Amino acid sequence: MEFDTITAISTPMGEGAIAIVRISGDDAYQIADSIYRGPGNKRLEDADSHTIHYGHLVNPKTEETVEEVMVSIMKGPKTFTREDVVEINCHGGIVSVNRVLQLVLSRGARLAEPGEFTKRAFLNGRIDLSQAEAVMDLIRAKTDKAMNVALGQMEGRLSQLIRRLRQEILQTLAQVEVNIDYPEYDDVEEMTHRLFLEKAYFVKTEIEKILNTSEQGKILRDGLSTVIIGRPNVGKSSLLNSLVHENKAIVTDIPGTTRDVIEEYVNVRGVPLKLVDTAGIRETEDIVERIGVERSRAVLKEADLILLVLNNSAELTHEDELLFEAIEGMDVIVIINKTDLPRKIDLDQVKQIGAKQIVSTSLLEDQGIDDLEEAIASLFFKGSLELGDLTYVSNARHIALLGQALQAIESSIEAIEAGIPIDLVQIDFTKAWELLGEIIGESVQDGLINQLFSQFCLGK
Amino acid sequence: MEFDTITAISTPMGEGAIAIVRISGDDAYQIADSIYRGPGNKRLEDADSHTIHYGHLVNPKTEETVEEVMVSIMKGPKTFTREDVVEINCHGGIVSVNRVLQLVLSRGARLAEPGEFTKRAFLNGRIDLSQAEAVMDLIRAKTDKAMNVALGQMEGRLSQLIRRLRQEILQTLAQVEVNIDYPEYDDVEEMTHRLFLEKAYFVKTEIEKILNTSEQGKILRDGLSTVIIGRPNVGKSSLLNSLVHENKAIVTDIPGTTRDVIEEYVNVRGVPLKLVDTAGIRETEDIVERIGVERSRAVLKEADLILLVLNNSAELTHEDELLFEAIEGMDVIVIINKTDLPRKIDLDQVKQIGAKQIVSTSLLEDQGIDDLEEAIASLFFKGSLELGDLTYVSNARHIALLGQALQAIESSIEAIEAGIPIDLVQIDFTKAWELLGEIIGESVQDGLINQLFSQFCLGK
Repeated sequence: MEFDTITAISTPMGEGAIAIVRISGDDAYQIADSIYRGPGNKRLEDADSHTIHYGHLVNPKTEETVEEVMVSIMKGPKTFTREDVVEINCHGGIVSVNRVLQLVLSRGARLAEPGEFTKRAFLNGRIDLSQAEAVMDLIRAKTDKAMNVALGQMEGRLSQLIRRLRQEILQTLAQVEVNIDYPEYDDVEEMTHRLFLEKAYFVKTEIEKILNTSEQGKILRDGLSTVIIGRPNVGKSSLLNSLVHENKAIVTDIPGTTRDVIEEYVNVRGVPLKLVDTAGIRETEDIVERIGVERSRAVLKEADLILLVLNNSAELTHEDELLFEAIEGMDVIVIINKTDLPRKIDLDQVKQIGAKQIVSTSLLEDQGIDDLEEAIASLFFKGSLELGDLTYVSNARHIALLGQALQAIESSIEAIEAGIPIDLVQIDFTKAWELLGEIIGESVQDGLINQLFSQFCLGK
Repeated sequence: MEFDTITAISTPMGEGAIAIVRISGDDAYQIADSIYRGPGNKRLEDADSHTIHYGHLVNPKTEETVEEVMVSIMKGPKTFTREDVVEINCHGGIVSVNRVLQLVLSRGARLAEPGEFTKRAFLNGRIDLSQAEAVMDLIRAKTDKAMNVALGQMEGRLSQLIRRLRQEILQTLAQVEVNIDYPEYDDVEEMTHRLFLEKAYFVKTEIEKILNTSEQGKILRDGLSTVIIGRPNVGKSSLLNSLVHENKAIVTDIPGTTRDVIEEYVNVRGVPLKLVDTAGIRETEDIVERIGVERSRAVLKEADLILLVLNNSAELTHEDELLFEAIEGMDVIVIINKTDLPRKIDLDQVKQIGAKQIVSTSLLEDQGIDDLEEAIASLFFKGSLELGDLTYVSNARHIALLGQALQAIESSIEAIEAGIPIDLVQIDFTKAWELLGEIIGESVQDGLINQLFSQFCLGK
């Protein structure tokens, strides 16, 4: 395929030592050569692929120096996009990287859309669609485990599974055709039904296995939306601080990194907790007051996990009962805090809330946090995450397609068992094959592809 | 010199397509080879310098894949630090870049201090101190012109000027020594005095020339701290919006860039306006109410420029008079807004405020903003900025040292003219020579160097 030449800033915006402006396409070298001035008038076009060149960028109209740069040149097809790629490493300032970008744009490159580099890698056949989607999951990964899942998917683990299933379905369909066209026995009908049924159950089981990882996969990918609630002064802020400080936050303790953007995420034993409305908790203790408000209830409804903090040294109040009502039927872990003080709380009453786990803590004395973390991890992963099987399905699009493929297979099983004619079963099998194909980007429409890649970050 | 091997994340933190972990030092290649797995078991150590290699990073203890990477290798001394440098380009996610960093650290590299790469470039003699300082100015530049100044300084323009002056002083001192040791004439004393005086005036004039650029240089570097004041509903918010929207903000309109961090800076014809407390203006119109408050007065005191907005269609009030008092003696531009409405304001009274400029606008009808921008630019640069002379001195340390050197020279002139013995004049000359040396990092102390580089961003 042939495309125009695109460019974008490929490093995060902000002040840093180095920023990269990436160019991909047939004109990448020509554009770079028109603005690059290196020692001895060397031309990048003449240099070996995959080499790095020191020099300056100049505005060719005025010959004014624009930046001091290192230019990396990579000849297609052994590149990220399979096209010619030039990466200009300049100083990581906002002005400097923008002016390098403007200079490249002025030479005829087009500003890339979000995800367009990866889209080209897909369209040029270097990676399939699920691998392309994994690139963005990898960048957005909140924990090590989530990154491992994305890395596995990027390397094609999910694709391999899907391809194997599609192969099974295709072979079955082919075998059935053979049976119909060249019947060796009289009981073709029965043979074909048996073959279909066997394969349908096999494919069903395999899809179910993959789908079983989806809940955990989604949590790993998107984080576990968590709300801390409780009456004023029960220790909500202390709990938040303990979770943030005891565990490394997503950004480990590297000096100079900005915490603000992501400090809502806390990594609890590989589970990324997305702490909703934590700012609110820090600033005020009025969650209870707001519990009646529609918006607060909406936040609770969307939560995957409720951490309900109660005071060990006080009796339950009417406010607590309001909270119990608001979280009925949800995944709740009750934290009975202030165990350093004499117990006044009625434990039997607490047990009636229907919490998944009840943990006792004294946040003041730094006790019980381990138990809480264990409770969170075991509630959602039951230890299975430790086993190193990295083929989790986490992407909502993949999950939906797998679900639809499962339905098609199940409908084929019903059809076979009801003795429905083979050509109708063939339709179900073919449908499952197509649906699985959409996961890896075979038989998908342009519109979908554009929409998918537009969710990427710029420069990828 | 020999140092240990250091590493750091060299791209801004955040989500992006690419992040870079940089390693510099004798062990850079060895560390990279211990974690890099490329096609055909190739070793980076054996590859040519300035080449790029695709592959995976693995944890050598478990052989688990950590990331998919492109590794750039550069043999010293033709590198940023003059040492062996390896740059690992990985996916620009927070988890991925941190885990690459952790892997490199686990192989024996030390986490670099802020600015340590540039410090090595200085200590290893690739650049002098004023060039090193320019690196950070370049990254922090708020406008094109500020970046040009930094680029010029980084290329050594200021260093050359300083070196030439030091050379003049040194030659004079040498000549004087010769005159004293080998007097050819009887009037050695008079000869020497004349020579000293001539050179002292020359050096004085040159230093003054450089110092004359300092006010503009500082504004270019740090921005012009600007406060917009005025009574409620005179159009402060409109003015702010006009300035922000008419002019490209510092970040040009590249989709996907974050505006929040820097949106206080507006680029007015190359002058970076740092709009103080703009958030306050946007949210409330109560600046006048707060004018009596100590803190507001403090903000005003620190401002370089006051934009005072008055309402053309209303008479001046007691509130306006309070404002006039508060800004007395400061650099003020008066904006008479709402010229689309009939004039009721008393212009003679306005003229008595002592504003540098008075500009009429109708922000509603989008008129007069050009005049205001012209007023701002001419007030601070009087057109001289357009001339392309890029040797501005902008760094407070440099300005202070130039000031002290100027004093030493002036004191030598006094001494000569008062007929004071030559050896005392020699002391002043030597002092000026040393002070100028500190600018480019000759004869500076370790403590100062450490302090300077600690202000850098990480990974530079």
